[in-house]
Amino acid sequence: MKKPERIVIVGSGNVAEALCRAISAIGRGQLVQLFARNPERGQALAALAGCPWTDDPQALAEADLYLLAVSDRAIGELSRQLPFGDGIVAHTAGSVDIGQLSPTLRRGVFYPLQTFTAGRAVDFRAVPLFIEAESEGDYATLTALAEELSDSVYRADSLFRQKMHVGAVFVANFVNDLYAAGEQWMRACGMDFAALKPLIAETTRKILAGGSPLEAQTGPAVRRDWPTIEKHRQLLEDAPALKTIYDLLTEHIIEMNETHGKL
Amino acid sequence: MKKPERIVIVGSGNVAEALCRAISAIGRGQLVQLFARNPERGQALAALAGCPWTDDPQALAEADLYLLAVSDRAIGELSRQLPFGDGIVAHTAGSVDIGQLSPTLRRGVFYPLQTFTAGRAVDFRAVPLFIEAESEGDYATLTALAEELSDSVYRADSLFRQKMHVGAVFVANFVNDLYAAGEQWMRACGMDFAALKPLIAETTRKILAGGSPLEAQTGPAVRRDWPTIEKHRQLLEDAPALKTIYDLLTEHIIEMNETHGKL
Repeated sequence: MKKPERIVIVGSGNVAEALCRAISAIGRGQLVQLFARNPERGQALAALAGCPWTDDPQALAEADLYLLAVSDRAIGELSRQLPFGDGIVAHTAGSVDIGQLSPTLRRGVFYPLQTFTAGRAVDFRAVPLFIEAESEGDYATLTALAEELSDSVYRADSLFRQKMHVGAVFVANFVNDLYAAGEQWMRACGMDFAALKPLIAETTRKILAGGSPLEAQTGPAVRRDWPTIEKHRQLLEDAPALKTIYDLLTEHIIEMNETHGKL
Repeated sequence: MKKPERIVIVGSGNVAEALCRAISAIGRGQLVQLFARNPERGQALAALAGCPWTDDPQALAEADLYLLAVSDRAIGELSRQLPFGDGIVAHTAGSVDIGQLSPTLRRGVFYPLQTFTAGRAVDFRAVPLFIEAESEGDYATLTALAEELSDSVYRADSLFRQKMHVGAVFVANFVNDLYAAGEQWMRACGMDFAALKPLIAETTRKILAGGSPLEAQTGPAVRRDWPTIEKHRQLLEDAPALKTIYDLLTEHIIEMNETHGKL
């Protein structure tokens, strides 16, 4: 498989930063440019990646691969505005169809199923990458890079990738929302959120260690412990949003337990 | 503070196991007996703790402290049935009022805010312990043991402890339910749940590292990315329970973001 020799990253957000870190760490000097509208972040990321930065469309470098790490809604427009020439243009978004990229381009997708935070390095070798392209040749090129970066590379069309993104929303955004709810509740109780952290760590550790979350479930709902559930509902009387979540997820835990997790 | 010199653990579930591990690890030989109805688990835990086992109420050892690590609904009855004598009798449940214990006893509560799994050791020093007693002397005794075991010891009446339990349900049972939902969804997509694990690990790691979950939120909901949300809802058409959760938590993320997490 032919690896892309010259790569340009477009964008300066958290995905762009993660790609800068991961690709520059291969150490083959493929990163030829970072293109970003935001000069401060752009220059910082270019320095991190050891490549030049530009915000001038006319100065966009020639490359075998342009990785678009920009916001979902900017992908379509940007793919029409920049003079990409003959390189592959791959976006990095979970829920954007490959067809959103300009049809004049060699289109592809390079989607990392991970949450990235400015300033936080992650182990990119463990990040699942979902690859899509319009030709077998471009697919092979994208996959060659993906396999240099990660041990988990999958082929996925836009529909499948969107389904993966749905799964990600449940275990990341929604889980984080429950953490936020826990933080809010503890504050209302006059307690530091930190008191929940050992429990949070162990709950996650347990399923990362290989247990099925369905089998690992504990607590009043799965025990059908109605007196405790009723007590909790009374305590949530003044927190109606939390009470609604409590009722729905309690019901869902019981349903999952009864149906053994069958969809 | 006077530490309890002779401790009996009653029960053979996961909390009993965790207490056996933690108390025997202090190495002062305070564990004088394990009382449990289940002979197999009882003998296994007694061996783990290096103390004798019995299932005979008449053979219950004299002790300064009896820790009742039994199911919520067994606490009241058991506190009336066993000949506890003059020792403190403390249950270990999050949502059971201290008043459920027989009023003839020196009653207390010793609640570890953690999830315990058979065969899995946790770092007990990090487990928050919530202590309640009816006299200052008994409170001091329970606290002395608690501080030998953990770095996070709190005084809490039954109402406050129940509130802590509500917080635990959100960040443990409900989070685990979302993991189960993610597992179910991935299976329906023909993908291994393992593909979500790096994301799960990083989402949790991020807030354990000190970030506020409210500030750390990402994804389509907090971005008000309606086209993506609509796409996800369509993909969930055949999974009505997941769709209901999707809608409620999407709405909640937006509400949390708008109200800055104020209850």
